[in-house]
Amino acid sequence: MIVEMNIARALFAPRSVALIGASADENKHTSLPQRYLKQHGYTGEVYPINPRRSEIMGVPAFPAVTEVGQPIDHAFIMVAAEQVPEIIDDCCRAGVRCATLLSAGFSEVGAHGRKLQERIVDMARDGNLRLVGPNSLGMVNLPAGIVLTANEVLSLPKLPVGRNGLISQSGSLLGALISRGMGRGIGFSKMVSVGNEADLSAGEIGAMLVDDPETDAILLFLETIRKPEALRAMAARAHEVGKPVIAFRLGRSPLGEQLAMSHTGALSANGAAVDAFLADIGVVCVSQLETLIEIAPLMVGRKPSRGKRIAVMSTTGGGGGLIVDSLSARGVEVVAPSEKLVEGLKAKGVTIGKSPLIDLTLAGTRADTYGTVLDALLTSDHCDGVVAVVGSSSEFRPDRAVQPILESGWRDNKPLAVFLTPQADRSHALLNSRGIATFRTPESCADAIHALVEWRSPRALPSRGALVAAAEMLLAGHEPGTVAPSLAAKVFDALGVPQPREVLLPVDGHLRPEQLPSDLTYPVVAKIVSSDIAHKTDAGGVMLGIADPDELCQAIATMVATVRQRMPKARLQAIQVQAQEHGLAEALVGYLNDPLVGPVVTLSTGGVLTEIYRDFAIRPAPVDEAEALEMIGEIKGLAPVRGYRGLPRGDLAALARAIVAISQLAQVKAPSVLEAEINPILIRKEGEGIVALDAFLTVGSHTE
Amino acid sequence: MIVEMNIARALFAPRSVALIGASADENKHTSLPQRYLKQHGYTGEVYPINPRRSEIMGVPAFPAVTEVGQPIDHAFIMVAAEQVPEIIDDCCRAGVRCATLLSAGFSEVGAHGRKLQERIVDMARDGNLRLVGPNSLGMVNLPAGIVLTANEVLSLPKLPVGRNGLISQSGSLLGALISRGMGRGIGFSKMVSVGNEADLSAGEIGAMLVDDPETDAILLFLETIRKPEALRAMAARAHEVGKPVIAFRLGRSPLGEQLAMSHTGALSANGAAVDAFLADIGVVCVSQLETLIEIAPLMVGRKPSRGKRIAVMSTTGGGGGLIVDSLSARGVEVVAPSEKLVEGLKAKGVTIGKSPLIDLTLAGTRADTYGTVLDALLTSDHCDGVVAVVGSSSEFRPDRAVQPILESGWRDNKPLAVFLTPQADRSHALLNSRGIATFRTPESCADAIHALVEWRSPRALPSRGALVAAAEMLLAGHEPGTVAPSLAAKVFDALGVPQPREVLLPVDGHLRPEQLPSDLTYPVVAKIVSSDIAHKTDAGGVMLGIADPDELCQAIATMVATVRQRMPKARLQAIQVQAQEHGLAEALVGYLNDPLVGPVVTLSTGGVLTEIYRDFAIRPAPVDEAEALEMIGEIKGLAPVRGYRGLPRGDLAALARAIVAISQLAQVKAPSVLEAEINPILIRKEGEGIVALDAFLTVGSHTE
Repeated sequence: MIVEMNIARALFAPRSVALIGASADENKHTSLPQRYLKQHGYTGEVYPINPRRSEIMGVPAFPAVTEVGQPIDHAFIMVAAEQVPEIIDDCCRAGVRCATLLSAGFSEVGAHGRKLQERIVDMARDGNLRLVGPNSLGMVNLPAGIVLTANEVLSLPKLPVGRNGLISQSGSLLGALISRGMGRGIGFSKMVSVGNEADLSAGEIGAMLVDDPETDAILLFLETIRKPEALRAMAARAHEVGKPVIAFRLGRSPLGEQLAMSHTGALSANGAAVDAFLADIGVVCVSQLETLIEIAPLMVGRKPSRGKRIAVMSTTGGGGGLIVDSLSARGVEVVAPSEKLVEGLKAKGVTIGKSPLIDLTLAGTRADTYGTVLDALLTSDHCDGVVAVVGSSSEFRPDRAVQPILESGWRDNKPLAVFLTPQADRSHALLNSRGIATFRTPESCADAIHALVEWRSPRALPSRGALVAAAEMLLAGHEPGTVAPSLAAKVFDALGVPQPREVLLPVDGHLRPEQLPSDLTYPVVAKIVSSDIAHKTDAGGVMLGIADPDELCQAIATMVATVRQRMPKARLQAIQVQAQEHGLAEALVGYLNDPLVGPVVTLSTGGVLTEIYRDFAIRPAPVDEAEALEMIGEIKGLAPVRGYRGLPRGDLAALARAIVAISQLAQVKAPSVLEAEINPILIRKEGEGIVALDAFLTVGSHTE
Repeated sequence: MIVEMNIARALFAPRSVALIGASADENKHTSLPQRYLKQHGYTGEVYPINPRRSEIMGVPAFPAVTEVGQPIDHAFIMVAAEQVPEIIDDCCRAGVRCATLLSAGFSEVGAHGRKLQERIVDMARDGNLRLVGPNSLGMVNLPAGIVLTANEVLSLPKLPVGRNGLISQSGSLLGALISRGMGRGIGFSKMVSVGNEADLSAGEIGAMLVDDPETDAILLFLETIRKPEALRAMAARAHEVGKPVIAFRLGRSPLGEQLAMSHTGALSANGAAVDAFLADIGVVCVSQLETLIEIAPLMVGRKPSRGKRIAVMSTTGGGGGLIVDSLSARGVEVVAPSEKLVEGLKAKGVTIGKSPLIDLTLAGTRADTYGTVLDALLTSDHCDGVVAVVGSSSEFRPDRAVQPILESGWRDNKPLAVFLTPQADRSHALLNSRGIATFRTPESCADAIHALVEWRSPRALPSRGALVAAAEMLLAGHEPGTVAPSLAAKVFDALGVPQPREVLLPVDGHLRPEQLPSDLTYPVVAKIVSSDIAHKTDAGGVMLGIADPDELCQAIATMVATVRQRMPKARLQAIQVQAQEHGLAEALVGYLNDPLVGPVVTLSTGGVLTEIYRDFAIRPAPVDEAEALEMIGEIKGLAPVRGYRGLPRGDLAALARAIVAISQLAQVKAPSVLEAEINPILIRKEGEGIVALDAFLTVGSHTE
């Protein structure tokens, strides 16, 4: 991702703008950009391009951008899709640096549009022109008063300037977010509608905001992921310089996922993989719309911390209760004050209880009381973040209610979130103007705190595992497709996933006990090996609980007869015999090269209920052991082997090592692995390891 | 619940008010009620009561309410808790009709306060005085301009009058809700802070609002349930007259539950039982705070309907996507337009797609297009409710954007909810003034629609089951406590829950096969019967999978020896032998007489994971079969026996009959049943019934 710095300038602060397809008809959206540029005081050159006009709104118009004869930093293209290639050609020839395409009708409408989009991207690359969109609603640079968009919200006389940069895959929501921010005194630095991201992606434009001295936080409104590596790189640099990257993602429900796919032209949607990817690269993920606007001050200038204990103080029991309830419902730990804190406050003449909700009641509306408690919380070591709730007084007496918050030492201490129970717009604006995070609803406040405690530093993917080369060698030269189970087992064995000891016997219905290996540990399981049979159990090719050599010979005879009858054309290669293994619990570990975000590894308990309860953990692959243990901790269905209610613990360390090993499939190249699964992995008692039973593995044709 | 109508008048529209403990010091909260009464234009008599003052704010003060010498409708009591009994005595002697107690320090502070509270309730009852509170912040009657409260929000010059009545267990949130409503043009008719509900409860005051011609909807902010039968009666009458009752409940998280308990002085908290109770009596339950303010117009004048299909239309893909995503995440069905609708619109010149999100894009900002589609949806039979989303135009051109909604035929058709993506306060107020439900956030909009589709008519509890008398006879005269397993089994058998056939054998370690009954169906299970052993398995008193008479004799010998060794003092009564039953799945049915809301029946799959996944269904008991089948449908863990992925179905009709039978324990009186459980119930294949294995039952001392 190399974007020259002057592209950022051409995009956000162009010295000259061509409006291609500009209209003089005020009822048309294509007239809006020129009007808005003027209204918000743009001082650069404006060139309306319209072959049927000699002037528009008093500005000389040109028939084509090639006719302008002056350098053009940024072209805003508003023509129909089929005219776009010609316009792009013009722009390249005129030496335009950057073009934003309002035009729709590209990849979001299917195969034809995708082809057209590829064509203009190729043309632009050859012509040294960078593109925003197509299907973009444009850009706003608020501190500079430069607006290049057709969004109606720009008809507002004065827009609030702030230090949040916003990148949105939904153009229409730009206006909604500006408007909502304005209502509570929250402004923006720069906003971009990235549309289809045919060329410049959210990650690349985000990188420009990382470098932008007017931006402190980067907000993303996402519907899909395009160019995940650009996003990863941007998030890593943002982390370095202390600018939080915060995302709200549309499509978190089953139907929402489908809609986002059809709306963005994405070819797949795996919401869980996307969320795992965003968390992994250090993006803060919020789940309520308004949290996206409100949350930034909670994180600006901070790094993710390991502390997750939150203290809540309030002047109103009901208001404080709303916050505690919302936090607890999201699994955030709300801590009661420590003995030391209670004693310290008593020495200052303030008595507080030992409940997790520090309810100062009406007495807390005294500024000195409120301030004393707040400062004590901000410096106490029993909590890692504070939510301060203020009741009706925040609407009527900001002096009493909000002043102690403004004067508190929040900036040098832990994160502070404020929830005001009444409307209290003035208090919100006052707090926001000082860089304090305030929330209008208890739910968005709790959502933000949840996002804060879940926030993590971008993870460096582990370097190539030592055993990957061995696995790679086993797969070398394999045709694309599913590999034989025996090879899959060898690959997992090579990566370090313990396989059961197995013996292969000939397909012989007349085998006698004395022909069997003498070192089998009974009971055993016998399975037909056949590359023609996908579902061995259905074909009658699996027998369990075989107690001794006699039974084994009998079982093989029965199996062979049944399979030959049910699937007469199947070629039977061998009979596989394994010790019948037992575990305290079973797990399923899956690996997938996700089309949106790349390799991911998943863990669940397997079986029908996993799906029904949506009880799985997912991470970008590869993972390290710490990460794998975290995944294990997320699976509710594994609680019984985590020591729940005194039940015996499973060997979770061994399971974690297996997850790590399987996740290293991401590092296998030539051929790359598209999909793999071990189901089940039996988890034995602590210290006794795990054993992987059925393995499945599909390879692709080339390195991703 | 008999509340004379003149109590409602004395409470909400008193002709005379005594302010007991009134202060002339403007910095004291006790000065506020008098100031607010005047400010909002109260025209009745005001009598400040303060023994140290002859006048307060220019109004003559009296040393005691008994000195006034005029009839007093309503006393507002602001003295310290310990002075309250004397004041109540005064009020009774002065013939006061109704008193609101701002004073705190009663049941919410523990045993001492509870005693004091009981004392004043007794005094008031004897003196024919009705109480609101204690720990109440007072009452506001907005249409009449009567405010009797110390809440600071009343210092606002003009409060919006509306048709929502609000009853809150949290006093401090009254102000927050007024303030938030005002911000979007939503007003209230009457608001009451009910405090500890020592006398008049939320149900009884709600009943006054059912009769109040100025109130269309009754909103409840709840922290606990007191007098559930009064709530049930109120909700039933509200349903009859078409006034929705809508509740937001604090304490839905584990920690929130604990806080609500300590905050309200309630002795227990079982949130799931409370939610089940509220839904059962026909109360609409919302889960986001602002939904409580916004939702009423969606339901006013309507009854719960069986239709649950929602259509979503939008002028903005992003905004519409937010709604669809939020609805889908809450399990609400969003339906795509029917063929008929698409064709009908085409005939009118409007083309829409077949996606579940009807995205009109920019074209839909034309008023006639928007109106045409909206009217078609409101009259189409493919959906039961409509969400209309409007983008930025709602902020800048209400004429285009909101006018077609105002003019639509929503009132005579299905429920309509409006979500505006920008701030758009003017449009919200305009829509609200016409009685249209509008929502500020996509989450509250989806929460409201979810509440709408879940809304049900108050359920009439089934009449006494025919078999209850038989069960009652079996328990008659039983001491309070857990009954013997054999009696528990008989009780469930009497109610119609199929029990396994069992044989009782003597406790004899030397039994021979020929001494056994000849009609046992092997394999069998054998268990020690002993009233001294709670955990039979731990004592070695259970053996499974016994294959034949020889093994049974051996098993009994082993069991007797082991139990005698482990628990030498236990008296062994018999050996119970049952056929070893198998089912496709297991269920646990529990019964509890909940201290807050009365008898409830619960269903789960039992086992450790039920708790971990919180996968259970709960209903007030008794239930009928339809209700029981609904409960079965809610258990995710039973999906495998509901035909999920072609798995064999279980006999769910038989399970439903068992749930009905068990729920009838609620009708057993003298002694009443406190708690019962059957775990497990084995669910056999469809048509093959169920069988109840282990039963447990505890009776109380008297009829509840």
